[in-house]
Amino acid sequence: MTTPRYELFYWPTIQGRGEFVRLALEDAGAPYVDVAREPGGMKRMMALLKGGGGGLAPFAPPFLRTGKLLVAQTANVLAVVAPRIGLVPRGDAARAHAHQIQLTIMDLVVEAHDSHHPIGPQLYYEDQKPESKKRAAGFVAERVPKYLGWLERAIAAGGGAYLLGRRASYVDLSAFQVLAGLEYAFPRGMKRAARSIPRLRELAARVAERPRTAAYLASPRRIAFNEDGIFRRYPELDEG
Amino acid sequence: MTTPRYELFYWPTIQGRGEFVRLALEDAGAPYVDVAREPGGMKRMMALLKGGGGGLAPFAPPFLRTGKLLVAQTANVLAVVAPRIGLVPRGDAARAHAHQIQLTIMDLVVEAHDSHHPIGPQLYYEDQKPESKKRAAGFVAERVPKYLGWLERAIAAGGGAYLLGRRASYVDLSAFQVLAGLEYAFPRGMKRAARSIPRLRELAARVAERPRTAAYLASPRRIAFNEDGIFRRYPELDEG
Repeated sequence: MTTPRYELFYWPTIQGRGEFVRLALEDAGAPYVDVAREPGGMKRMMALLKGGGGGLAPFAPPFLRTGKLLVAQTANVLAVVAPRIGLVPRGDAARAHAHQIQLTIMDLVVEAHDSHHPIGPQLYYEDQKPESKKRAAGFVAERVPKYLGWLERAIAAGGGAYLLGRRASYVDLSAFQVLAGLEYAFPRGMKRAARSIPRLRELAARVAERPRTAAYLASPRRIAFNEDGIFRRYPELDEG
Repeated sequence: MTTPRYELFYWPTIQGRGEFVRLALEDAGAPYVDVAREPGGMKRMMALLKGGGGGLAPFAPPFLRTGKLLVAQTANVLAVVAPRIGLVPRGDAARAHAHQIQLTIMDLVVEAHDSHHPIGPQLYYEDQKPESKKRAAGFVAERVPKYLGWLERAIAAGGGAYLLGRRASYVDLSAFQVLAGLEYAFPRGMKRAARSIPRLRELAARVAERPRTAAYLASPRRIAFNEDGIFRRYPELDEG
């Protein structure tokens, strides 16, 4: 058996941060294995997290192995893999620009996570419900519009239908994902936000129709959103 | 008057995220201007944040201008500038590795910030004190040891005195900064943590002795830690 070109390591039952990498690999039709979802895969992932791969163990999943490279941190994984699978334009300036957008999306992802974990990731949601209610209210009312408004302006600044202009790139897949996640978690809040982000919604609709991405989204490989992931539907956090 | 090689844009009265970039530019002896600390500089920064630079405005400071490039997101700025100022080894693998460590440090910085802003960045600390007390307790007891322990292992894995091995790089400057910040904010908590991070403390001490960095730290260019920044000394958050 040959080693597949890309081995993705991520928690097997949630979309989480791994989904940003899955979407890129799927959209590109890249040969990859979602290791922890294969028999014995969790054991392999945990061994690497404990330093069994030699060198520095990743701080956390997702991480990707390709050839001799073991790379962690979602945005970093995407920055490394996107040029290899044709999902980012050539040129250092374009790539730094793409990465800047991706890192801003990842900042939004942290805040989305903290809407149900304001006191800390080491506690359960059930142990921080009153605080979550406060944080989620401000998140939906102020932070989400600020981030999505910025993405909306980024599309306008690019001069095309996508974040980098006329051609889709991995950051569009991530923008699709974060919008899908927010719509799952905050259906009421996002209904109000929808009016001010027409370009972003159009972009997300286009992404969802890309043939390989559409096939992926309809497949069992796409894990459903659920309340163990980053985007959680807790109606009590979507009341405002 | 010629335009300086690097123009850094960041809030003029705090270390904040801008300090990670300042440290790199200072340590390298790079020709830069800290724009918002110059006469009329705040106005220029705010104009760029409002999109006056053409193209996509940064989501937030810090951002850096060099030549035609306007680059934002702290870790991205460092990834772009470090190769130009000799603060990262050659080679894509080494640079992805450095960036992975930097992004993990930036994750720790977010959590340090949220120790006094658990309900959201749009509110004052005074409006979220009880929640801050809870978040800070878990941050100091569980999150800080997890992150610093990982940095300690990263130094060990590199096989030298620095995070990437035998030669200092920009990630060492950032590790110094985050340790200094935590020691400022949580003197009691960090006293307990000190025993388990001998390599990291040694690294920070070496960084502080690098001639240009030492000169910078002793100069008025180094803004003192204060309670408007990311690392804040609130005794009530350092009791545990």
